[in-house]
Amino acid sequence: MSAALTLPDATDTQGATLRISEIFGPTIQGEGALIGEPTVFVRTGGCDYRCTWCDTLHAVDARFRDTWRPMTTAAIWAEVERLSGGVPLTVSLSGGNPAIQPFGALIALGHRHGYRFALETQGSIARDWFAALDTLVLSPKPPSSGMTTDWAALDACVTAAAGGPAIVLKVVVFDDADYAFARAVARRLPALPVCLQPGNPTPPPAEGPDPAVDLGASLAQMRWLVGRVTDDRWFSARVLPQLHVLLWGNLRGV
Amino acid sequence: MSAALTLPDATDTQGATLRISEIFGPTIQGEGALIGEPTVFVRTGGCDYRCTWCDTLHAVDARFRDTWRPMTTAAIWAEVERLSGGVPLTVSLSGGNPAIQPFGALIALGHRHGYRFALETQGSIARDWFAALDTLVLSPKPPSSGMTTDWAALDACVTAAAGGPAIVLKVVVFDDADYAFARAVARRLPALPVCLQPGNPTPPPAEGPDPAVDLGASLAQMRWLVGRVTDDRWFSARVLPQLHVLLWGNLRGV
Repeated sequence: MSAALTLPDATDTQGATLRISEIFGPTIQGEGALIGEPTVFVRTGGCDYRCTWCDTLHAVDARFRDTWRPMTTAAIWAEVERLSGGVPLTVSLSGGNPAIQPFGALIALGHRHGYRFALETQGSIARDWFAALDTLVLSPKPPSSGMTTDWAALDACVTAAAGGPAIVLKVVVFDDADYAFARAVARRLPALPVCLQPGNPTPPPAEGPDPAVDLGASLAQMRWLVGRVTDDRWFSARVLPQLHVLLWGNLRGV
Repeated sequence: MSAALTLPDATDTQGATLRISEIFGPTIQGEGALIGEPTVFVRTGGCDYRCTWCDTLHAVDARFRDTWRPMTTAAIWAEVERLSGGVPLTVSLSGGNPAIQPFGALIALGHRHGYRFALETQGSIARDWFAALDTLVLSPKPPSSGMTTDWAALDACVTAAAGGPAIVLKVVVFDDADYAFARAVARRLPALPVCLQPGNPTPPPAEGPDPAVDLGASLAQMRWLVGRVTDDRWFSARVLPQLHVLLWGNLRGV
């Protein structure tokens, strides 16, 4: 672990602008430990990864850069307040990789109004404001993504958040190699709860009409993963679906 | 609240017998706050309720009494250990109404081996061993069930568990009247987290071939409930499906 990997948030003032792909909700969180909780999503544009099965290419691929709006913390907060009617709830900071953006000021502002913040990131970039979060979801990407995990960077994320948020691991599993990766991640970070999530076999394309989700294939993938975990008696792992995909397919904004 | 409503577990020794409908798993918990957690289920036979839409009639209706085995605590524990391979996990005590049976000795025995215990009950019967649980799920039944909640009994369950397990509310919601009931329950017990669960529009019959679950209707019911909660800005409620019904339909033993 190296503290040098943790980036300070030098531009993190109320005047800084963040690159936002979309803000939507309230809907329920469809994934991971907070599944089922009413949530407003703030999705940033831009990512240091290019996963083969990325399901949010519109917030990742630079081709869509002109759809990402620069927004100040104040403007983002105004939209979160409008969508939630001023009633505190959990705000999920997602992406792309939201760790690229300076979120410290938004978290501080929202906390003053009773809102909670969860961040979803692959764990490739650590920021000092991780410690101010309520929940940090670290989702290192398995072999099927085509990405390679920088373990020092992942450790730096855990260190940056130490003493602050609940930290949980979420690993997407498409196949046996991904499952072995998930076990390795859990062995490496034994203190952290693990959620396993079956991959979406029919992710949306970045543009054009979304393919219908193959609900049968999604459910079969989930049943396979439950069997894998219970056969191995890996009882500390939770297995959860992408609930929003079951409910709404690949529809955006829900 | 009346402590007199809390029944002592006079027969609760290792030699007592419990009426067991089925013991199965490990599979994942499909409902409520522990959704996705590997679990072995111990389902008791017998219930003081007769909900119109009961989805476990084989463990409720006295017609099936001859399928319920009297088992000692030691025999139940042996089966839980066999199914879990001796690896600690969460044991869900379910029914029927499992509060009818003397579970104190099983909980004490399992705890010595590192197992955790969750109880699912409508909250009509309070027992002193509730305080030894890890999780108490109180699931008062809404108007569509045809049952009437005894609020003093529900309060007695909370009192019996005080200082012990995490206590969570789970309310099944079929329609607007059920939803209003859920809100009333939450107002009455504001300190407890609430999970809302859409009703299964195609519950299994007690015997004969199970009807195929209408997956479309289940998902539509869930979308309706999410809309209801977010429209009302009831952001402290979680909305979670019956995941096992989505995955396996009405199949038993999963």
